[in-house]
Amino acid sequence: MLFKKKQRISAKDPIIPALQAIVGEEDVLYRYEDLVAYECDGYTIHKGIPRAVVFPESTEEVSAVVKYLHQQQIPFIPRGAGTGLSGGAIPQNNEVIISLVRMKKLLEVDFYNRYAVVEPGFVNLKLTNAIADKGYYYAPDPSSQYVCTIGGNVAENAGGAHCLKYGVTTNHILGMEAVLANGEIVELGGVPDVPGYDLMGLITGSEGTLAIVTKIKVRILKTPQEKKTVMAYFDKVQDASQAVSDIIAAGIVPAALEMMDKVAIEGVEAANFPVGHPRDIEAVLLLAVDGLAAGIDDQIAEVVEVCQKWNVREVKVAQTVEEAQRWWANRKTAFGAMGAISPDYLVQDGVIPRSRLPEVLARIGEISERSGLRIANVFHAGDGNLHPLILFDSRKPGETDLAVKVGSEVLKVCADVGGSITGEHGVGIEKKEEMRFVFTDEEIEAQLQIRDVFNPQQLLNPDKLFPTPSRCAEVKQAAHK
Amino acid sequence: MLFKKKQRISAKDPIIPALQAIVGEEDVLYRYEDLVAYECDGYTIHKGIPRAVVFPESTEEVSAVVKYLHQQQIPFIPRGAGTGLSGGAIPQNNEVIISLVRMKKLLEVDFYNRYAVVEPGFVNLKLTNAIADKGYYYAPDPSSQYVCTIGGNVAENAGGAHCLKYGVTTNHILGMEAVLANGEIVELGGVPDVPGYDLMGLITGSEGTLAIVTKIKVRILKTPQEKKTVMAYFDKVQDASQAVSDIIAAGIVPAALEMMDKVAIEGVEAANFPVGHPRDIEAVLLLAVDGLAAGIDDQIAEVVEVCQKWNVREVKVAQTVEEAQRWWANRKTAFGAMGAISPDYLVQDGVIPRSRLPEVLARIGEISERSGLRIANVFHAGDGNLHPLILFDSRKPGETDLAVKVGSEVLKVCADVGGSITGEHGVGIEKKEEMRFVFTDEEIEAQLQIRDVFNPQQLLNPDKLFPTPSRCAEVKQAAHK
Repeated sequence: MLFKKKQRISAKDPIIPALQAIVGEEDVLYRYEDLVAYECDGYTIHKGIPRAVVFPESTEEVSAVVKYLHQQQIPFIPRGAGTGLSGGAIPQNNEVIISLVRMKKLLEVDFYNRYAVVEPGFVNLKLTNAIADKGYYYAPDPSSQYVCTIGGNVAENAGGAHCLKYGVTTNHILGMEAVLANGEIVELGGVPDVPGYDLMGLITGSEGTLAIVTKIKVRILKTPQEKKTVMAYFDKVQDASQAVSDIIAAGIVPAALEMMDKVAIEGVEAANFPVGHPRDIEAVLLLAVDGLAAGIDDQIAEVVEVCQKWNVREVKVAQTVEEAQRWWANRKTAFGAMGAISPDYLVQDGVIPRSRLPEVLARIGEISERSGLRIANVFHAGDGNLHPLILFDSRKPGETDLAVKVGSEVLKVCADVGGSITGEHGVGIEKKEEMRFVFTDEEIEAQLQIRDVFNPQQLLNPDKLFPTPSRCAEVKQAAHK
Repeated sequence: MLFKKKQRISAKDPIIPALQAIVGEEDVLYRYEDLVAYECDGYTIHKGIPRAVVFPESTEEVSAVVKYLHQQQIPFIPRGAGTGLSGGAIPQNNEVIISLVRMKKLLEVDFYNRYAVVEPGFVNLKLTNAIADKGYYYAPDPSSQYVCTIGGNVAENAGGAHCLKYGVTTNHILGMEAVLANGEIVELGGVPDVPGYDLMGLITGSEGTLAIVTKIKVRILKTPQEKKTVMAYFDKVQDASQAVSDIIAAGIVPAALEMMDKVAIEGVEAANFPVGHPRDIEAVLLLAVDGLAAGIDDQIAEVVEVCQKWNVREVKVAQTVEEAQRWWANRKTAFGAMGAISPDYLVQDGVIPRSRLPEVLARIGEISERSGLRIANVFHAGDGNLHPLILFDSRKPGETDLAVKVGSEVLKVCADVGGSITGEHGVGIEKKEEMRFVFTDEEIEAQLQIRDVFNPQQLLNPDKLFPTPSRCAEVKQAAHK
């Protein structure tokens, strides 16, 4: 009965028929039980109910929906697959969610000029699957790539294990069509070397606060001829860290270079893809080298030699593709694996200069000890992107808040050594206040002024990405209230 | 006497003592004969005299100069070595030039974390020279690299022959310190994965219209173990063009992949570094492959095979480092070499999809025939960046204007096939009107709004980069005058 009642109230909301008139009656959700599915994304600590969820199927429909909402001054949030880890798609003001999942077509593939054009709801991994038989792939590979959308990847400037060698999403976007906050449709980039200001780069990674991307032209790459994987076990994190630096200093750029610490190993060994890591080591390195077949063996030999120089306990090369795939599956499921050793976990996403890793891990160890919460560390070692997984039990009073606080302390450590508060998960709701760890008031104000150009009324994904209150003037006002 | 008189007038300019009080008496030029050297940059078709030239030696001096000029509402232009090819540093409103050439220190090199920090006046090639003995180099290599500054490279987002594999300047900038139009000092980037909007990317390539960069943190790369160079002569441009595509389709990413046409060959063979190219071919390809020593020979063999498939007349591999250097010197001096076959030349800088090259060259041939001006074509074939060199004689009445018009027509051809009006030389004064070939009024207006955030009063390098009048409202006003 409760649901029925709420449904009736929602159905009376005058915006529902207006939105239905644009996208079709079936393509608007407004019943409470339907809306609940949209109360959070991959960041589950905050929740909020949207006013409605609409599913446009074309750029024109997105534009018409936005024009209507703009005219009515109703705030709205673009959303892809909802796999974001910082709450970028969570309603905080009863916003209307514009879901892009029905815009999921692969519009064009041009192997000669090496690009593909997709709609924003097209799933990341499907692009590689669609072009693999011709010997091509799409490089950015977030762990959620089997479900996350390329539109969402653009919003978050998503990374992945292979970003060390191949770069993050912004390095692979060649052009885009976007709907601005007033419903206007623009095209950006699309050709190499666009003159003027790099607005496409500005929108990429802006977490849905500047525009809604409705078409994306991405670079596709030739699949490397050969790929080999190495696993190395170290008694000391310090040695593993030195090995990472020496490998890169040798001029080898691994396709991926990952590290896990003792607690992370405990998790992955307790979960779906155990591979028999020793439990008494401080660090495991997992590394792939790809490229032309000629020369790969020499690079692998050099990697092994560097590991031996730094007192590796054991180093091995995957003997078959299947073995390599098992090793990577073990690593790729590390986040979810925490569920095997803890009721809940919160993943953080700091960035540090590679050389500061041993020191940062020591400080994270201190935070863990002080708080009483265990922390597992998964590290994109090559590019300094650290994912501490804070283990907690949400059933214990206060422990969720404690985990959030610990996450913030870890980010402060990263910022203090000259690092950053997010490598690939974005700021969203989660890290709004932590923006102050890396930006001064003036630097935040400069960004707000840019936001004002695209999103002057803050209808487009409001109250995200920047601290609240976000302007010095607002801080002063708040102080006088 | 004329100079003396002008000198006296300038010396009375009240801003001179004010500027001298900031940077020192010797560090302000104001005599007419000194100012003449600053009336243009590498684009010599437009000229204008600055009001003064100041030489700050620190960020604080830049900031103080800008604060003073901002307070006085006097426009100003940042300038590096003055090698820009689109007139970005040319005064049009008697601006004060802020020359950064005395800020030329290499401040820091960190081999472990692979970066260097330089002042903006530091010369591009000096960075590679300073770190080469440790086995490192700085990748972006404009042809003017022995004299151009890294600050200027940032302003223009400069490229170079090696940008095919390694990317342009923006891909190598890790952080910057900049002085805004009001004199405020900001730091941008500096750590990997900065959250929020990519303001550093926005300033890079903004041609001195958004900020004055005063410190730059750049990525340094490990010098490749091995490098081999191939030269290939083709009777038909079509075949050379197909060979380029097949080389890239084979998964080989050459470090550089250059093409010259018949007229360009005539030029380079008449100039300082002739290498004996045949004169009756339509195209020469010059290509370098670099990387780990293992595997290079296989790649070279594949390149040779592709060339043979496409009817190459002759293909050869440089047998010594010296031979390769001679071949590259022959190519790198191609612009200047035009002086050996023409009194004057104007270099253009279009970008096209690689696959459209034969068609675009045919259309450029038609423009050449119609105008009566010869055009040589030098082409960064790998990334589609075409440099038509329009040969003319400025002593013949009207021929300079004709050359400018021909350049614009060539850019229209590039834009019409889905290309762009500048690959690496920037828009500056030269290509302001051609911005309309690639942007609608709305798209230009969006960029002007971004400019307004950083440069609201247009004191910083005014009347550059955008068409004049640059706003729809101004167009309408002008129409009513």
